[in-house]
Amino acid sequence: MVYADNAATTKLDRNAFEAMKPYLLQEYGNPSSPYSFSRSVRKALKDARARIAFCIHALPEEIYFTSGGTESDNWAFKGFMPYKKKNIITSQIEHHAILNACAAIERFGCSVNYLPVDKYGIIQPDVLVNVINDRTELVSVMLANNEIGTIEPVTELAGIAHENGALFHTDAVQAVGHIPIDVNAMGIDMLSASGHKFNAPKGIGFLYIKKGTNISPYADGGAQEFGMRAGTENVALIVAMAHALEANCKNMESAAERLYRMEQIFLCTLTEAGVDYLRNGADKHIPGNISISIKGANGEALLHRLDLKGIYISTGAACDSINTKISHVIKAINVPKEYAKGTIRVSFGVYNEEYDAVVVALAIAGILRNK
Amino acid sequence: MVYADNAATTKLDRNAFEAMKPYLLQEYGNPSSPYSFSRSVRKALKDARARIAFCIHALPEEIYFTSGGTESDNWAFKGFMPYKKKNIITSQIEHHAILNACAAIERFGCSVNYLPVDKYGIIQPDVLVNVINDRTELVSVMLANNEIGTIEPVTELAGIAHENGALFHTDAVQAVGHIPIDVNAMGIDMLSASGHKFNAPKGIGFLYIKKGTNISPYADGGAQEFGMRAGTENVALIVAMAHALEANCKNMESAAERLYRMEQIFLCTLTEAGVDYLRNGADKHIPGNISISIKGANGEALLHRLDLKGIYISTGAACDSINTKISHVIKAINVPKEYAKGTIRVSFGVYNEEYDAVVVALAIAGILRNK
Repeated sequence: MVYADNAATTKLDRNAFEAMKPYLLQEYGNPSSPYSFSRSVRKALKDARARIAFCIHALPEEIYFTSGGTESDNWAFKGFMPYKKKNIITSQIEHHAILNACAAIERFGCSVNYLPVDKYGIIQPDVLVNVINDRTELVSVMLANNEIGTIEPVTELAGIAHENGALFHTDAVQAVGHIPIDVNAMGIDMLSASGHKFNAPKGIGFLYIKKGTNISPYADGGAQEFGMRAGTENVALIVAMAHALEANCKNMESAAERLYRMEQIFLCTLTEAGVDYLRNGADKHIPGNISISIKGANGEALLHRLDLKGIYISTGAACDSINTKISHVIKAINVPKEYAKGTIRVSFGVYNEEYDAVVVALAIAGILRNK
Repeated sequence: MVYADNAATTKLDRNAFEAMKPYLLQEYGNPSSPYSFSRSVRKALKDARARIAFCIHALPEEIYFTSGGTESDNWAFKGFMPYKKKNIITSQIEHHAILNACAAIERFGCSVNYLPVDKYGIIQPDVLVNVINDRTELVSVMLANNEIGTIEPVTELAGIAHENGALFHTDAVQAVGHIPIDVNAMGIDMLSASGHKFNAPKGIGFLYIKKGTNISPYADGGAQEFGMRAGTENVALIVAMAHALEANCKNMESAAERLYRMEQIFLCTLTEAGVDYLRNGADKHIPGNISISIKGANGEALLHRLDLKGIYISTGAACDSINTKISHVIKAINVPKEYAKGTIRVSFGVYNEEYDAVVVALAIAGILRNK
């Protein structure tokens, strides 16, 4: 099989699994219990928090563990109630965790602006300058798009937010563990991350909240997560997440180089096989994330034909794959009509071999030839 | 070591671990992806949902997976916005996940009544009858108390709620997997559960929501959990939770019998050793949960002295153990002053041996004798 849908989810890092195992089997004490049996558990939590913080240049006390990217995004948006007369600015190409959280808070009287993007999926800073106003509480733009991989100019966007007295949040679910992130240098106030996008298990993530940011707790209850997100900590998965992130960050440069090379192999093979396609997204994109729109093809049919060959890719976001309609991202970047329906996303990850790029491209070309 | 703090958290069921492992290592597809690689994952989720539902006599589509009991409780309370002019009724002895969620929604204009309890920790149905009114949207009373084990008369309380047009929620975190639960027979509209209290891992739980209950989604985003709780599913932990709950329910009767016997052994040993204590809670209580208040003793000091002997118990709720003050539950049941400070909770679980009851009791007696 060739798994080429790493933007949907990734294979768990084996060392991360081994690191989490003791916290499932032997070290099962509740971190909130004061006795010695829980000491190693508390220490593991503390270590994991520090190691994760280090990976994005944050302080340990700025990392709040959540159940994943969606929870992190929801917290970042819902932590500013009451919304009445407030304004939030985001983009048209955000993940549904953001777009649907926006829809929810709009019902509570918050106004939300959805910034358009250019044909590469880039939110131009000027567009934000024109929309931001003195009621704007929060600007939220993703660090990298999940469907087309485009990396957004968040440093510039955060700067504009701050000049106008607004906070800046970024959904970095596709970026954490894949491109270098320095929350301070980039001026990020809040950042969402999801473990299973960087070889940690599903069901764990974090929200970075810059020290001093005035946001409400997301879950009320015990004093866990500095009183901001109650509930017994998911110790084992937190430990795994720290290991996986650290490993990904350590090998980030060489992995990126390999993945960009695989992209070229994939695209060249397609071209040589005579496939008429457009590549979506910007030059600055997440390594390994390749969105292409093939003229006259049907992305969904292609996905299923590849499935029969043991090749797993996507037509867009995983949570949208069931729907056949053209995604909001592909619409936003104005892919020509004759190409749009033939959009697929191939996303290679650290466990792919260069050979996979050839296999997937030739399989696509073969299917198109025989349709 | 003797781990006797099973009300704080429990040891993972080994079979549950084995059952979850494939979903960490090999079957890592995103359940939302439409290809065949994710089919087994979707099936595992579906199976887990059905098996969990069966354990509490619910329908599969009434089970919504969450990150734990605290999230479930928060959802049940926060799913009824806007709160203005609404009334919620709960009890004085709820877990902090409920009490602090109440405090949060009080700030948004909801009135909350906190029902008192009798000396056994029981919420008398008459007390609810006197307080409930036509603004009451929700009545929430825990199925069993975490500190003293008292099982509340939820069937009667739910009946009163319904007669007055209110919904009934129960925090069943201490009860699920430990006593028989039939959500229909008991008239429960919503029920919170936490995996790690019944030998599943930390970080997973569920909220039962009766079909037709009009509650808002807790997390907006993808279409997971019937559009009510977005975010990629924590597949491995969900599978483990189903296994652990099923195992606990299968052996529930024999386990309860053993645990009640251990309680007697523990208490008799204390009495024979001349310890002057009061047992807190009601006759109808969670098997293995023993709260005692020892005259003139200091619960916290006792906890630490036992820790030195490799015995792990609690002074109350795990998330409160850091504080030395007398808990809200012990205050609510009016434990006499000379006993209250000497309160400890010993909670035996399925992995304890009868011998442990003797060991813990003798250790306590020994420490008190030599103080």
